[in-house]
Amino acid sequence: MAATSVADEIFKEFKEHSISEFFRKNSQMLGYAGKVRSLTTIIHEYVTNGLDACEEAGILPDLNVELKEIGENKYSIKVSDNGPGIPQTHVGKALASVLSGTKFHRYMQQRGQQGIGAAGCTLFAKITTGKPIHVRSSTGKQAFECDITIDIKSNKPLLTNVLKIDADFRGVEITGEFGEVKYEQSDHGVLEYLRRTALSNPHCSIRLLAPDGQESIFPRSAAEMPKRPRQIKPHPLGINTNDLVEFAHKSTVSRKVSSFMIDTFSRVTQNKIDELRTAAPDVNFDKNPAELTWDEAEKIVKAIKQIKWIAPDLDSMSTIGEKQIEAAIKNILSPTFLSVVERKPRVFRGGIPFVVEAGIAYGGSAGKSSGQFVEGNILRFGNKVPLLFDSSVCAITEAVKNIDWKRYAIQKFDEEPVSVMVNVSSVYIPYSGVGKQAISQEDEIIEEIKLAVQEAGRNLQRYLHGMKSRSIQETRYKTIMRYVDQLSADLSEITGEKKEAIEVKLKALIEGKYKKLFEAPPALDESDDKGVQKVDSESDD
Amino acid sequence: MAATSVADEIFKEFKEHSISEFFRKNSQMLGYAGKVRSLTTIIHEYVTNGLDACEEAGILPDLNVELKEIGENKYSIKVSDNGPGIPQTHVGKALASVLSGTKFHRYMQQRGQQGIGAAGCTLFAKITTGKPIHVRSSTGKQAFECDITIDIKSNKPLLTNVLKIDADFRGVEITGEFGEVKYEQSDHGVLEYLRRTALSNPHCSIRLLAPDGQESIFPRSAAEMPKRPRQIKPHPLGINTNDLVEFAHKSTVSRKVSSFMIDTFSRVTQNKIDELRTAAPDVNFDKNPAELTWDEAEKIVKAIKQIKWIAPDLDSMSTIGEKQIEAAIKNILSPTFLSVVERKPRVFRGGIPFVVEAGIAYGGSAGKSSGQFVEGNILRFGNKVPLLFDSSVCAITEAVKNIDWKRYAIQKFDEEPVSVMVNVSSVYIPYSGVGKQAISQEDEIIEEIKLAVQEAGRNLQRYLHGMKSRSIQETRYKTIMRYVDQLSADLSEITGEKKEAIEVKLKALIEGKYKKLFEAPPALDESDDKGVQKVDSESDD
Repeated sequence: MAATSVADEIFKEFKEHSISEFFRKNSQMLGYAGKVRSLTTIIHEYVTNGLDACEEAGILPDLNVELKEIGENKYSIKVSDNGPGIPQTHVGKALASVLSGTKFHRYMQQRGQQGIGAAGCTLFAKITTGKPIHVRSSTGKQAFECDITIDIKSNKPLLTNVLKIDADFRGVEITGEFGEVKYEQSDHGVLEYLRRTALSNPHCSIRLLAPDGQESIFPRSAAEMPKRPRQIKPHPLGINTNDLVEFAHKSTVSRKVSSFMIDTFSRVTQNKIDELRTAAPDVNFDKNPAELTWDEAEKIVKAIKQIKWIAPDLDSMSTIGEKQIEAAIKNILSPTFLSVVERKPRVFRGGIPFVVEAGIAYGGSAGKSSGQFVEGNILRFGNKVPLLFDSSVCAITEAVKNIDWKRYAIQKFDEEPVSVMVNVSSVYIPYSGVGKQAISQEDEIIEEIKLAVQEAGRNLQRYLHGMKSRSIQETRYKTIMRYVDQLSADLSEITGEKKEAIEVKLKALIEGKYKKLFEAPPALDESDDKGVQKVDSESDD
Repeated sequence: MAATSVADEIFKEFKEHSISEFFRKNSQMLGYAGKVRSLTTIIHEYVTNGLDACEEAGILPDLNVELKEIGENKYSIKVSDNGPGIPQTHVGKALASVLSGTKFHRYMQQRGQQGIGAAGCTLFAKITTGKPIHVRSSTGKQAFECDITIDIKSNKPLLTNVLKIDADFRGVEITGEFGEVKYEQSDHGVLEYLRRTALSNPHCSIRLLAPDGQESIFPRSAAEMPKRPRQIKPHPLGINTNDLVEFAHKSTVSRKVSSFMIDTFSRVTQNKIDELRTAAPDVNFDKNPAELTWDEAEKIVKAIKQIKWIAPDLDSMSTIGEKQIEAAIKNILSPTFLSVVERKPRVFRGGIPFVVEAGIAYGGSAGKSSGQFVEGNILRFGNKVPLLFDSSVCAITEAVKNIDWKRYAIQKFDEEPVSVMVNVSSVYIPYSGVGKQAISQEDEIIEEIKLAVQEAGRNLQRYLHGMKSRSIQETRYKTIMRYVDQLSADLSEITGEKKEAIEVKLKALIEGKYKKLFEAPPALDESDDKGVQKVDSESDD
């Protein structure tokens, strides 16, 4: 009896709790850790949603952020965009139900991916001020406003004061009151977040009205929309057994495993099915996909890895673009040297496509001031979203720190005026935490980032090497020139020629010898550029 | 029409998804990142649950872990404990429903706190091998076995093959097959995890059977159960406005705000209510708690901060204990110096109690071998659970790295044979991520860890300082002694006294002067020990 009652006693308190309750208790996991970071997190979530919505609707984004201090560590925050708006039928769940949204199930590059961010803001407003957020939304034809809060126990939205309003605007405007936040001009503050957002989204215009009344405007520097990411079918190489079984059992149209695979995944053709039949002779590809067993799926996944595939469809990817990065970095850092690289798309985990862009800026305002010194810094981006926190666990930091910088004429990365910018784009970025501030340190991603930075680094090496030999030669040139006057006078006495004539000749001779000073340094070879994943790129259909 | 249809088009794909689906897609956030870490995560979750269950039932834990390699990166894992068992009615949800459990709503120190871990293992088994886990559970009176998996879409458990069995054992035994895992003897591997678990849980006995057949046994080194943590009432200083409103609206017994507060929180007495009435004169403490508004709650929270309170009830805390830490470190590291400190409990976020224990070991096997060098290392624990990952974002790392080690006679922490062990105990540890491998860097926690390590550091400084001056004096002593023979002979010639007699006298003289060598070094003052939070400790009821 004693034994039974102990277990029963313990489990008497057994309860289920909602994801909202979980994040209410552990809001630090969403990025609500510290007052400055919490404020940046709120702005980050709304700005990210605004940019995604505009991009999807093909609209050049105008973002407006206004902050007002309304109490001790208490701010009123307004963020508006000119996007497509949110329909009234969906606004509650979109903004006040954790794990709801349009993005989770899509295989498409987007800033948001989880359906947690905006609902997290509503939750944070509720737990710090008790207030709902106020939303105005217009599709340009229909508009409404309402107050929205979240019922934490059920993770369901609560709407009040719903009103139809004039549709004389388009987009979403969210106003909320938040406590436990603080505006600060720092590396982790809102201004820096928006500055970096502008850097990686040159097609976007952003205005910030700070609590002290100061207005900052980041104007649009590119009038074209970036290439629009498309929803794609998953590549067979990125599928694990569990995915395959789940997809197969969900399949409603296809009557055979073969047709199900052709319909569901990219690059699967009748020819490829035949190859798979040969590689997995035990598997019946004509059976109903609803009846596919784990063992069969495991055999198919093994067979997939044995045959050749065309690389994943990469049109799905939207990068910032070399020119845009160049223009933006020049604009913000005015470096004396700049090298930008956009790599070819690669895949990780077998079949998830991703692209890395990297830029290295040197001199000017590059690097980070730390007291009277300047040190190297890393500007990290995931799908064009600036990553300001958790730097030490990020794949980008890991890659940049592990480069042998001496090879690129940087003696110590921490002591030079150098900024490295890296943007990773993918339909799925494996963030290390729910707050999405660091990319999980997966080997294939780290390796590809390293290659991108090294590629940009070779140009830097050439430049700094040139700088160095130039500076040595300049010293010699100046030293010799210092003697020309005296030497010309001496030679004039010995030879009887005019001093001025001798001086002109001597100077021409010396300048001839040192004219390399005014030329570009020689090119280096570009031999160590090898990809992380070999995928056959020949077409087979 | 175009405008309307864009938003409608986008939101056509709007969906909700379950917490299981979320973690299926983002399993790296649970700690399933990399094969070695994934294996450690599984063991960590089961061991943690076993220890919590034993502790709650007052049973000295015997844990048994068996690993078998059954394929490429595929292992069969068995973990069993001798705890109270899980009742059949709860086993499904306990092991296969994310966010279910006994621990989330309790205000009590426990290793687990979220109800995610074990369900995460079941999920990971399913997505890597498609297999359910097999469970045998016995309360000592009743026993059963069954297979359990998780329905990812609904986050609900699926039980099959449920059978009553002989209750000739007690506890829980879980067997599962997992893919994408790997056994490795490293700093992040299972063996190291269990070694550190033994270090921080000396009342526990642990056996590991590794895949290579090697058996490791960590015997119990303390035969007493640690002080059992108690469930406590929250302290008013730890309550924010949202908490107060939620508690008040849930209250079913109390008819007045005043009695509700006395019932719900610790340290609230009729006297304290009178003080609160004075500090918040607008608030009606006689109204029904169900009708407490946000504004009123906000005023009460403000008033709470204005009056004096007895410190939180600290009986709720269960530490490892100075003697246990000492014995365990001696056992494992055999250091030449060891200093262990258990601090007084403190509070963070106004009212959440926590305790820090710290130990510093020097020499012997302390420190971490890195090639031919030894460097300082940090052994981190949260509620006695070893934290092996995400070190760089942890409050413990931040505190230890920011200590001015030169003050403690350590020239460079990274270059000396020193191990710093820190255990943070609390009813609520603010982990930085769902995987619970790092403590969020909150100022009050960092500060208190620093004070603990510095306190232990003062003894280290005394020891190393003593070592140093002793070594200088030893050299001088030996140098002088070398001349005693010659000097005695010379003096003997001059004075006519016997050489041997002179030698004895001289040696006595020298030894007298250097006798400090054989004594303990002088004590230092202990002035910089100031707490992080001033709480009045006088009793008022």
